Amino acid sequence: MGKTPAVAAVDWGTTRMRVWLVDAAGGVLAERRGDDGLITAQQKGFATILEGHLAALGAPATLPVIICGMAGSRQGWLEAPYVTVPAPIGAILAGAVRIPGQSRDIRIVPGLAQRLADAPDVMRGEETQLAGVGLPAKGRHLVCMPGTHSKWVLVEDGAVDGFCTWPTGELFSVLAQHSILRHSLGENPKPVTPDNPFFQDWCRKALAEGGDVTSRLFSIRAAGLLQDLKADEAAACLSGLLIGGEIASAGRRHGESTTAIVLVASGALATLYRQALDLAGLAVRTVDADEAVRAGLIEAARENGMIAK
Amino acid sequence: MGKTPAVAAVDWGTTRMRVWLVDAAGGVLAERRGDDGLITAQQKGFATILEGHLAALGAPATLPVIICGMAGSRQGWLEAPYVTVPAPIGAILAGAVRIPGQSRDIRIVPGLAQRLADAPDVMRGEETQLAGVGLPAKGRHLVCMPGTHSKWVLVEDGAVDGFCTWPTGELFSVLAQHSILRHSLGENPKPVTPDNPFFQDWCRKALAEGGDVTSRLFSIRAAGLLQDLKADEAAACLSGLLIGGEIASAGRRHGESTTAIVLVASGALATLYRQALDLAGLAVRTVDADEAVRAGLIEAARENGMIAK
Repeated sequence: MGKTPAVAAVDWGTTRMRVWLVDAAGGVLAERRGDDGLITAQQKGFATILEGHLAALGAPATLPVIICGMAGSRQGWLEAPYVTVPAPIGAILAGAVRIPGQSRDIRIVPGLAQRLADAPDVMRGEETQLAGVGLPAKGRHLVCMPGTHSKWVLVEDGAVDGFCTWPTGELFSVLAQHSILRHSLGENPKPVTPDNPFFQDWCRKALAEGGDVTSRLFSIRAAGLLQDLKADEAAACLSGLLIGGEIASAGRRHGESTTAIVLVASGALATLYRQALDLAGLAVRTVDADEAVRAGLIEAARENGMIAK
Repeated sequence: MGKTPAVAAVDWGTTRMRVWLVDAAGGVLAERRGDDGLITAQQKGFATILEGHLAALGAPATLPVIICGMAGSRQGWLEAPYVTVPAPIGAILAGAVRIPGQSRDIRIVPGLAQRLADAPDVMRGEETQLAGVGLPAKGRHLVCMPGTHSKWVLVEDGAVDGFCTWPTGELFSVLAQHSILRHSLGENPKPVTPDNPFFQDWCRKALAEGGDVTSRLFSIRAAGLLQDLKADEAAACLSGLLIGGEIASAGRRHGESTTAIVLVASGALATLYRQALDLAGLAVRTVDADEAVRAGLIEAARENGMIAK
């Protein structure tokens, strides 16, 4: 592009990382992806991995870096202590913590903690994604960020009011691999698609049952024994049950706030959740999750004075 | 005792088995327990294992044998096809299937299938336990049989009307070992006791939420990070959440039928469920599960003409 990078933006998760070079106007100049997430970095060193990616991108030695994700956890490069909600999104980003002893200016965006006695919760990485969604400065917005640990976040007038986690992706994989349902789903079930009638049927059942999913889990096994349910169909049932259950449970918890949802997701997961939210009768605006985290990191670079506001 | 055995009664599960010698009046003369359940028997042979136990008990070569449990599954000694509910308990027992090619009269009690399109379910072993509970011949009774796969059974005028499975025990062990909660519960959490305040508190929360447990699972992890929740406390939270969730879900499903419950359980599990049902405000009569299965097998021997009615 001929433009000069002003900052490197890094989304550093548990198993993978992404690096973008960004110019002074917030334009993306280059991108790199790697499988060297937190787990690899704990062994090889965070600085070594980051400098490798920056060198490959031809980044100058003084280019500042803004990071979000698990690199800021206690097991990461440097713990960026949780910011307690409620908290304005801008202030969360501005609280990025600088890593000492580095020649570059490298900062990590803090995660969020909900310190309620009855509903403690944490997030790390999603706060930056949320900042990149481009929510209106005013009003009440419910944001659904599906994944291994799905987060539903209530944002009010630009501040994170509260949030709750459903471990939907993790439940699917743990049950598929380690519970009696492994006999029903088999070794490598086909990816579930939103038009699958089993996905839709079980999603509808779960939506009608207020987040109670445990009473139907064993039915998937029984349907294999009694109704000749196939492995791919069983996977669609489990996916529909868990995603529908998550949406029903979130609806129960957030009440009238769930009339319109901002869905932050990419790829196949986005299509499944859009279908499930549609079955729930909810109006949805979808924002691409990959784009949101990149936009959130650029916003964080601005809030930390690395590029102009 | 000096008495002569009239039948051997065998509870043959997935991982263990129990054998009793019973006299013509239904009195128990001797007992043996072994770790050679279905999984071992698939390798060593069912007849070999059974004859070994009978020889050790000094049983005559012609003594008939009545069996319940997973030995009657498709992966067992001989498939005793499921009886479809609704079905009278006596008729279920009388339908025991004889194993061909054996010098003894050896029969296996069939399991039950609920062939509802929307709520398929199966059980194998619990039908015999149920027969041993000694329910009144008339009236409507809701029976809770907790375990790896908890069964809630509705019995009406001596017939099984319907049932539903909650995989509560399996969920606990799969989540404790394979989910992110393993970091919270540690390697070997202490067994949970009913007086544990974390068990009671999380049980109450779950009871108030209609069987929705997925919205609180991640809270256990977050409470470890934010509130210094200890491993044994985390195990108590998870146990309370899942057992309370099961009871709330069963209450939602069975409605007014849940005003009085027959709990069929032994040992520590019995004490946890009694506490949880008490927190739910339900009147409970407890029947020992070990005694129930023995009594059910003796009843099955009577129904099959092996001993006098």
